[in-house]
Amino acid sequence: MERYVTRKCFIMMCTALLILCAAAITSAEEKLPDAIESDPGKLGWMIGSPPPDNRIIRFDDGSYFKFPQLRWSVSNFRQLMPTVNVSRGVGAPSELKQKIDGNINQLTFLPINSKQPMTWDASLLANYTDGIIVLHKGTIVYERYFGVLGPEGQHGAMSVTKTFVGTLAAMMVAEGLLDANKKIAEYIPELAKSAFGTATLRQVMDMTTGIRFREDYADPAAEVWAHAAAGNPLPKPKDYTGPRSYYEFLQTVQAEGSHGDAFHYRTANTDVLGWVLARVSGRSVAQLLSERIWRKLGAEQDAYMSVDSTGTPFAGGGLNTGLRDLVRFGEMIRNNGIYNGQQIVPSTVIDDIRRGASKEDFTKAGYTQLTGWSYRNMWWVTHNKHGAFMARGVHGQAVYIDPTAEMVIARFASHLIASNSANDPTSLPAYDAVGKYLLKRDKAKK
Amino acid sequence: MERYVTRKCFIMMCTALLILCAAAITSAEEKLPDAIESDPGKLGWMIGSPPPDNRIIRFDDGSYFKFPQLRWSVSNFRQLMPTVNVSRGVGAPSELKQKIDGNINQLTFLPINSKQPMTWDASLLANYTDGIIVLHKGTIVYERYFGVLGPEGQHGAMSVTKTFVGTLAAMMVAEGLLDANKKIAEYIPELAKSAFGTATLRQVMDMTTGIRFREDYADPAAEVWAHAAAGNPLPKPKDYTGPRSYYEFLQTVQAEGSHGDAFHYRTANTDVLGWVLARVSGRSVAQLLSERIWRKLGAEQDAYMSVDSTGTPFAGGGLNTGLRDLVRFGEMIRNNGIYNGQQIVPSTVIDDIRRGASKEDFTKAGYTQLTGWSYRNMWWVTHNKHGAFMARGVHGQAVYIDPTAEMVIARFASHLIASNSANDPTSLPAYDAVGKYLLKRDKAKK
Repeated sequence: MERYVTRKCFIMMCTALLILCAAAITSAEEKLPDAIESDPGKLGWMIGSPPPDNRIIRFDDGSYFKFPQLRWSVSNFRQLMPTVNVSRGVGAPSELKQKIDGNINQLTFLPINSKQPMTWDASLLANYTDGIIVLHKGTIVYERYFGVLGPEGQHGAMSVTKTFVGTLAAMMVAEGLLDANKKIAEYIPELAKSAFGTATLRQVMDMTTGIRFREDYADPAAEVWAHAAAGNPLPKPKDYTGPRSYYEFLQTVQAEGSHGDAFHYRTANTDVLGWVLARVSGRSVAQLLSERIWRKLGAEQDAYMSVDSTGTPFAGGGLNTGLRDLVRFGEMIRNNGIYNGQQIVPSTVIDDIRRGASKEDFTKAGYTQLTGWSYRNMWWVTHNKHGAFMARGVHGQAVYIDPTAEMVIARFASHLIASNSANDPTSLPAYDAVGKYLLKRDKAKK
Repeated sequence: MERYVTRKCFIMMCTALLILCAAAITSAEEKLPDAIESDPGKLGWMIGSPPPDNRIIRFDDGSYFKFPQLRWSVSNFRQLMPTVNVSRGVGAPSELKQKIDGNINQLTFLPINSKQPMTWDASLLANYTDGIIVLHKGTIVYERYFGVLGPEGQHGAMSVTKTFVGTLAAMMVAEGLLDANKKIAEYIPELAKSAFGTATLRQVMDMTTGIRFREDYADPAAEVWAHAAAGNPLPKPKDYTGPRSYYEFLQTVQAEGSHGDAFHYRTANTDVLGWVLARVSGRSVAQLLSERIWRKLGAEQDAYMSVDSTGTPFAGGGLNTGLRDLVRFGEMIRNNGIYNGQQIVPSTVIDDIRRGASKEDFTKAGYTQLTGWSYRNMWWVTHNKHGAFMARGVHGQAVYIDPTAEMVIARFASHLIASNSANDPTSLPAYDAVGKYLLKRDKAKK
């Protein structure tokens, strides 16, 4: 499953919205532009009045998700498509202290499957980083931005969206508003005839459903295309007869294998989960995020979500946030759900995430770089010595929580390869190295 | 020119984006839904997961600008089309004190051309008000919301957008960055062959250009349709050969009459002005609004603007704001450009607006309800005894500044008739009545 996408595949992904491909097709033949060559500020996308013809990025011609245009688009999705606000409220933001540690840049680590050490500083370019913050005990010790992203501005969180939705679901389970053992059809009768109908809410939350949802972008018959076409907010072609919204699409999903047998990373699960949350609460996922998380965090910027043509937010990958707000969320989770003076997420939910799920189920998904991991409440749990767990989004989006080092890393990126398998080798050991460094620094101070 | 639009005309307006029609076609035969019958919350637009089929509002089928759907759309434009953020920054908002005066509801006034007194309270429904704030000496004395708008949430400002753009231009003239006497072609060579090329910046700022721009929505050949089609961010039809952006459209505008002869309210002037601001500053209108106004006001919410397919914000009508931020802007202007502890707009600009322009030029436009007014820097100047001046947007958007009464009113509305001539009779005398009441109240206190 650890495969790469070709440039051609990228072009084909254009209409796929923010759909995540953990699996794709390998190619390493072409010399592709590096982070400096593809810097969206230097390339001048959408600058000028008007921008030059060859520097305009439009939604409808599909160029927005091509590389290197993607590097501009990820910080400007709202200029390309309809979106819904995730309000922070109107109060003052919570404080984020900053005490930069200049040593971090020169920390070195061994990338996975490499004997060539790399510095933290070099890893940022290797990963096509757009912004990164390292928080230690709640204080920013490292913060840096590249290209067209800055501390103000929102970036696509891609599948990190799923982690927010999974956390909201776990909160509602903890509060007794949802029953994890109930079948999906009990919550959403419209899904009774789809493969989801007989799955339990827990199986959806942990992505162990047995559904046919191929994310092979090279295959025009793959379900991922039908999903993207259904969710695309642009007018449908006249001869289009498929589903016209995420909800309509979900009703067409067929069974493949059995529920509960194995972890299969499939975006459609999160869309189902978002539907359950909306149906039970009477609030959209965007409203829930605002009321239950964004306002309580004391976020400094509103977030937003892309929507389909019926106004349904894309629960599987449509969230866009400021980097500092993303790291606030991570810090709240690290701090057992407490942030900004209040218990935002029940601590039992955090305990449940940290315990993780079945490693055996996870192994079946074949992530060769993530051995020993599991997936719980839409969080990726490393089960490493520091007990780290993370949220992951295609092209390198990440929230990495290292409870032992009391560290949270939030990163936005626009890696030329969609699959995180491409950036994990120069990301995961880097995160681990900073965690160990901070732990050592703490001990030295004592 | 004081004519009304039929329902059929409204349907035709669907694709016209937020274009303003001060002129339209009269009809008063049909019984149309009142404010209570058309309340978007009660009608349940876009509520549910999914909303019922007959309660879904989509951009592409044109229903979003139909009445009563419009009443939902005006508070949710970003869910229907691409937009660009107007950032407030990340600090705490400026304080807006509130001391509600319960007497205002029962104030009475005589609507224009009527002998039947009306209460302030009744005028709110008559005008299909979505939100209204009365500020007296900087303190909120009246604040009320209807339908789906609340203190949090952004509403289309329609042509009030023009006033922001005109104010930005006047600021840059005052700072010497722009020369009001220069010809447009000197700033935008691409417009040399259009009618705008020979107009001065001042003529554009005061809308005294002689251009052919018919806003007759019943005439498919009217330029307003070409303008809307050019600015529509949706993909163009395959056989479409017209201009593909606001800037491309502006280059096609032909002459009609002479520049400087008369006031003609034509949206295209503001789009030209926006282009000049962008070209000279190297910043988009949205960026200028953020840097020069929104951040400095201590706005409590970000604003946003709709964009065409090249990312150009719609300077003629694309701004959406929170109501409290709109009233903050008005208060800053009333206070000679000072707000939140700083001089945001030079006081000479406010002086210039208050002096107004030629009443004779204005009279030629034929606004029978606005006799004795003038139009300066895209502000409407009443020249009444209180020296009031205002920003106006189709369907009832307004910022009304009464310097004598030290009062600012900000109003969002979704009147079933686009032209403000429909709501002026129950708005202008109401504003005047509150101003006089507050003045009397002040004197009684002394």
